[in-house]
Amino acid sequence: MGTTAQIGVTGLAVMGRNLARNFARNGYTVAVHNRTAARTRALVEEFGDEGDFIAAETARDFVAALERPRRLVVMVKAGEPTDAVIAEFAPLLEPGDMIVDGGNAHFADTRRRERELRESGIHFVGTGVSGGEEGALHGPSIMPGGSEESYASLGPMLERIAGKAADGTPCVTHLGPDGAGHFVKMVHNGIEYADMQLIGEAYHLLREVGGLTPARIADVFRRWNTGRLDSYLIEITAQVLSHVDAATGEPFVDVVLDRAEQKGTGRWTVQIALDLGVPVSGIAEAVFARSLSGHADLRAASRGLAGPTPRPLPEAEADAFADRVEQALYASKIVSYTQGFHQIAAASAEYGWGVDAAEVARIWRAGCIIRAAFLDRITAAYEADPGLVSLLSDAEFAREIGRAQDDWRAVVSAAVAQGVPAPGFAAALAYYDGVRAERLPAALTQAQRDYFGAHTYRRTDREGAFHTLWGGDRSEVDA
Amino acid sequence: MGTTAQIGVTGLAVMGRNLARNFARNGYTVAVHNRTAARTRALVEEFGDEGDFIAAETARDFVAALERPRRLVVMVKAGEPTDAVIAEFAPLLEPGDMIVDGGNAHFADTRRRERELRESGIHFVGTGVSGGEEGALHGPSIMPGGSEESYASLGPMLERIAGKAADGTPCVTHLGPDGAGHFVKMVHNGIEYADMQLIGEAYHLLREVGGLTPARIADVFRRWNTGRLDSYLIEITAQVLSHVDAATGEPFVDVVLDRAEQKGTGRWTVQIALDLGVPVSGIAEAVFARSLSGHADLRAASRGLAGPTPRPLPEAEADAFADRVEQALYASKIVSYTQGFHQIAAASAEYGWGVDAAEVARIWRAGCIIRAAFLDRITAAYEADPGLVSLLSDAEFAREIGRAQDDWRAVVSAAVAQGVPAPGFAAALAYYDGVRAERLPAALTQAQRDYFGAHTYRRTDREGAFHTLWGGDRSEVDA
Repeated sequence: MGTTAQIGVTGLAVMGRNLARNFARNGYTVAVHNRTAARTRALVEEFGDEGDFIAAETARDFVAALERPRRLVVMVKAGEPTDAVIAEFAPLLEPGDMIVDGGNAHFADTRRRERELRESGIHFVGTGVSGGEEGALHGPSIMPGGSEESYASLGPMLERIAGKAADGTPCVTHLGPDGAGHFVKMVHNGIEYADMQLIGEAYHLLREVGGLTPARIADVFRRWNTGRLDSYLIEITAQVLSHVDAATGEPFVDVVLDRAEQKGTGRWTVQIALDLGVPVSGIAEAVFARSLSGHADLRAASRGLAGPTPRPLPEAEADAFADRVEQALYASKIVSYTQGFHQIAAASAEYGWGVDAAEVARIWRAGCIIRAAFLDRITAAYEADPGLVSLLSDAEFAREIGRAQDDWRAVVSAAVAQGVPAPGFAAALAYYDGVRAERLPAALTQAQRDYFGAHTYRRTDREGAFHTLWGGDRSEVDA
Repeated sequence: MGTTAQIGVTGLAVMGRNLARNFARNGYTVAVHNRTAARTRALVEEFGDEGDFIAAETARDFVAALERPRRLVVMVKAGEPTDAVIAEFAPLLEPGDMIVDGGNAHFADTRRRERELRESGIHFVGTGVSGGEEGALHGPSIMPGGSEESYASLGPMLERIAGKAADGTPCVTHLGPDGAGHFVKMVHNGIEYADMQLIGEAYHLLREVGGLTPARIADVFRRWNTGRLDSYLIEITAQVLSHVDAATGEPFVDVVLDRAEQKGTGRWTVQIALDLGVPVSGIAEAVFARSLSGHADLRAASRGLAGPTPRPLPEAEADAFADRVEQALYASKIVSYTQGFHQIAAASAEYGWGVDAAEVARIWRAGCIIRAAFLDRITAAYEADPGLVSLLSDAEFAREIGRAQDDWRAVVSAAVAQGVPAPGFAAALAYYDGVRAERLPAALTQAQRDYFGAHTYRRTDREGAFHTLWGGDRSEVDA
């Protein structure tokens, strides 16, 4: 067996297998390896005619098959399995070699692994890969972190296999050192949760308040998909809503149990945002809505609580209501992305990553679940002003959300009045009104904290920290 | 120096000092110790006449002063300082001795420490202490975890120094093993964040929509404090709002900078709720509102965003509006407590703590920041049905919130229409409408997940996991 493979993939479950096939289909010789060799053999038997594979049965053979510097892609379950594979392969590698972790790792683990391997001169490249199994095969959005040097070597190959945006550019870029790639991938998933929750609320309102059937709502989503909401998730929503269950003849969405599941990256996004002090209320409400839906006992115990019964609008008003919901959905979506990009900027500053926000939006335009026409607009906003503090402060987004806000308020009010839960729409609107507020009741919060805990406060009219002697004569002292 | 002290306190910053004085004032002989001995001497000099103190300069003297089994209270900063003190004292102790950590430790640290010390027969008693410095001196709410055996020894002393509810019962109980006490204290703080945020929103709405001055709003809070909202936080809100800044003659709340700070337990509450899969949207919005208020750059960049300018109600309608805000505040508060108690129940089940929810509410009735008449009602609800799935399913709370909901909806709608941020009120209402919903759009979420990731779904009409061949003929297969 010669050292002829430009890249190796170990871990040949569906994501790893499809990524290996993607490399091979693009002309690379790919060494493939799996803990159980049967899977390696199966890949070569089934897909061997797609390109050049070298099947390696042992770790040593696998490493020996790679040209130097070695590029070794690990596609195993995040967590301990990743550490186990690194421990197995690192001793077989040499300075300059690269280990690419394409799993959904927690960015803190990626930072640790990068630091540990750096000592032995091995480049650890934590890389987000989005797009599911189809994306992995046909062109995912790829979000690598790691050293500049590793990207110089890997980048051209990743650009070849990545999804291509409408303008032909590949959806991959070097995001920054160590954990930057996995961090951006995590926020991508958090935004995906928010997008899905907002779409769910839009659907729910169109049904309960708009009085539309799933088939009619599918038409609405199809129409939206020709406009500024044009995106993969809107497209598949129309597909799902127009699908009829063969067994019952009912709309498919009505036979699916309404308990949403989750795998963890949405939760991580919120937990880490809390550590960074970034408000990501839209993503948080999306995560909470999923967990709420899964608490069957809580919901059963609450079913009898008083509330309005939605009274659908007259048929003649349904179209106008759908237009208002589109405004609410679009405005709330802008807020979700504002929060997500704020979180990326905060982490980039905290860890010194230098993440380019325009590039993040650019590489999400194809291959991944949240791909959307909208992302071109975000790229443009950050290209026009790389120091943009908030997406909401981009003139174009500000103008759009300003025009949307009357309808947005009307939709949230309708949800509130009719008793249809719209936590995502409501949280996004509260965020919007919060950031633009001249004064916030946080002043009262600080005063209370000073009252019960002597935590001190600052003043609007001069510098310094102050404390009022609440238990005494209520004079103010410097703190 | 004889072994005559019933209890010892090491770490004599304000909380430790006041707790030591509280023990002494209640007739116990208290050994006191601090890393720098000057502080120990200062305590005895200043407060020696309050009771019997034994000042110990060294760790060895401190331990020698304690009767057996030794009861050693650690009042140092949470985190590494706590571990350092344990490492210093544990070797000097014997099986059966107790280390009581009265700091704001993370419950996972408490679990670890308890496990580590258990091997040497030392009882580690992670204990929440609420009420700030005044509470520590005059009677805090005390939330101990740890072994039954340790509570048999410590309980009578803690009952002596704890705050007393109106019916005379002390605000302390044995909450459960290892991390139970610190967990309950953490959720207490999370609920405190939510209470303060809801009060802030009520104030903001009374001011912007109700058109009332801070002094008039103070009157409203004073009135509320005579009813079902009777509580420490409502009381001090009235105090703060009626305070006038001496330097400017302006209402005090108007000269305080509106950037709220936080110390971390609210953030922990949300992070751990996410791990437990419990929706705590009210607490999350409170934490986010604080961080949002602190982002000066974000707020400055967003100041020009379009939105309605609040138009205060006519004077004649202000009182009626205040009544509606009271309903909204009370209903939202019920939701916060519902979420917090859900989180405690979930952790208790996860870690096998057997926490008694009625007792939790009972020991929060005095001594702590969230003390409130309302807690009697929660105790009654859980006493009537210890297996209560949700506070909202208690008949009395369900009836109250049912009566409040029309006003609650009107207040949220007013906030939305007038552009006043009310994230806490809105999140609470969305939770209420979420748990009582017959169907949630989570069904659509699950269908989307099946579409793009083959994550499968369950059906409403039969058991099993299913997958639709979305890319094929759209037939359904067992998964």
